[in-house]
Amino acid sequence: MSTLFAGPFGANVSERAQLPPSLAISTVIFALKPGRDAGKPTLWLPLVRRVKEPFKGQWALPGGPLTATESLEDAARRNLGETTGLAPEYLEQLYAFGGLDRAQRPGQGSQRVVSIVYWALVRPTEAELLVDGEGEAENVAWHRADTAGEGEGGLAFDHREIIDYALWRLRNKLEYAQIAYHFLGETFTLAQLREVYEAVLGRPLDPANFRRQLKSVPQIEPTDQFLEGGKHRPPRLYRYTGPVQRSTT
Amino acid sequence: MSTLFAGPFGANVSERAQLPPSLAISTVIFALKPGRDAGKPTLWLPLVRRVKEPFKGQWALPGGPLTATESLEDAARRNLGETTGLAPEYLEQLYAFGGLDRAQRPGQGSQRVVSIVYWALVRPTEAELLVDGEGEAENVAWHRADTAGEGEGGLAFDHREIIDYALWRLRNKLEYAQIAYHFLGETFTLAQLREVYEAVLGRPLDPANFRRQLKSVPQIEPTDQFLEGGKHRPPRLYRYTGPVQRSTT
Repeated sequence: MSTLFAGPFGANVSERAQLPPSLAISTVIFALKPGRDAGKPTLWLPLVRRVKEPFKGQWALPGGPLTATESLEDAARRNLGETTGLAPEYLEQLYAFGGLDRAQRPGQGSQRVVSIVYWALVRPTEAELLVDGEGEAENVAWHRADTAGEGEGGLAFDHREIIDYALWRLRNKLEYAQIAYHFLGETFTLAQLREVYEAVLGRPLDPANFRRQLKSVPQIEPTDQFLEGGKHRPPRLYRYTGPVQRSTT
Repeated sequence: MSTLFAGPFGANVSERAQLPPSLAISTVIFALKPGRDAGKPTLWLPLVRRVKEPFKGQWALPGGPLTATESLEDAARRNLGETTGLAPEYLEQLYAFGGLDRAQRPGQGSQRVVSIVYWALVRPTEAELLVDGEGEAENVAWHRADTAGEGEGGLAFDHREIIDYALWRLRNKLEYAQIAYHFLGETFTLAQLREVYEAVLGRPLDPANFRRQLKSVPQIEPTDQFLEGGKHRPPRLYRYTGPVQRSTT
């Protein structure tokens, strides 16, 4: 991921640790998808299999370098599109990771990399990956956010830690109603909304309690529409009417 | 701020725009200090006068380069200490600024810089700048956060925009009680707490309404102590008992 160049200290391998840190951009894209057992939806994210060292063959967050002529967010969009085909409606800056202990293959002696990570919550309609013939491209696939890398020797670099940080931030977001808007779209049933909360929190919620608590969230309003389908009593659709927060760049 | 080096495209000045972006660390340190008219306290922050081009003679956020052997936060701490003498209890990452339109002196053709900005809220006891003999060092001084750079030809780079972003984030923080803890310390009177809210929001608040609303904030608890002083009825001290949020690095 890092560009090799002749630095001010000379491009001697033994001195590479003294090169100025280089910059990379990575993306964490969360979507709500049914579990493998067709059970309740959980949080998934796309990963890309690395085709070169370091960490060749292991899964990593979509990302790549920042070029001189694009903004940080543009670089995030471009790298995400090139690797996965995804184009989320909006991306938000999550955090810049630059610790000295960022996972490196021992003995690689590569230049230190600071990663600025963007994230997005996407709806099912946005969550279509690059397809290669019949199925997903071989080296890009959705993984469960909470278990990605387990039993596969882990994820590349410190990407497991970055995903855990993103999950922590998601759970600490106070505007859950807004999160639901990003995952579900304009209208949704109370059961769908509860499934978002359950997926983010990682635990089941009592439906009656949930319905009662939702009454106190003014940003969630009932509509005159009902979910289409064959049910005898189709459930009512609700709408998120609060602000959609975006960071400035 | 940027290091000149022979890049992969050759160090030709006309091609400098194609060099990989370099990294810098800056800091926004807010403290509550009395206004110049000895009136209500307002938000202030330390700035450093640039002694070289670009923007020589103009005020800038404390900061500097990231070296190969320090974490982002360590670099923020080191640069802040070296330029201002300040050592806040904790620093938090604010945002990474890397837009293509970041203010540059025309014709300088310098390498593009991505700035990772850390911020802190400090108490008066922490807000002691480097002193040079009798007063503040000539090239470091506290400025009012809302007006810094006005009438002086503006601040260096895009630092005015960065400060405005930090003020916007501060106003949008839901945990005002926690902000007060950072600005005021362990105990404070309700009047002091109101002054924090007023300084952050930039508008006066009705004392009776404020006192009533505070009753609904469970993280603010009365203590058995009273503010020392000569008053006939010294005001009661309160304590913040909620969590102190820190980001992970």
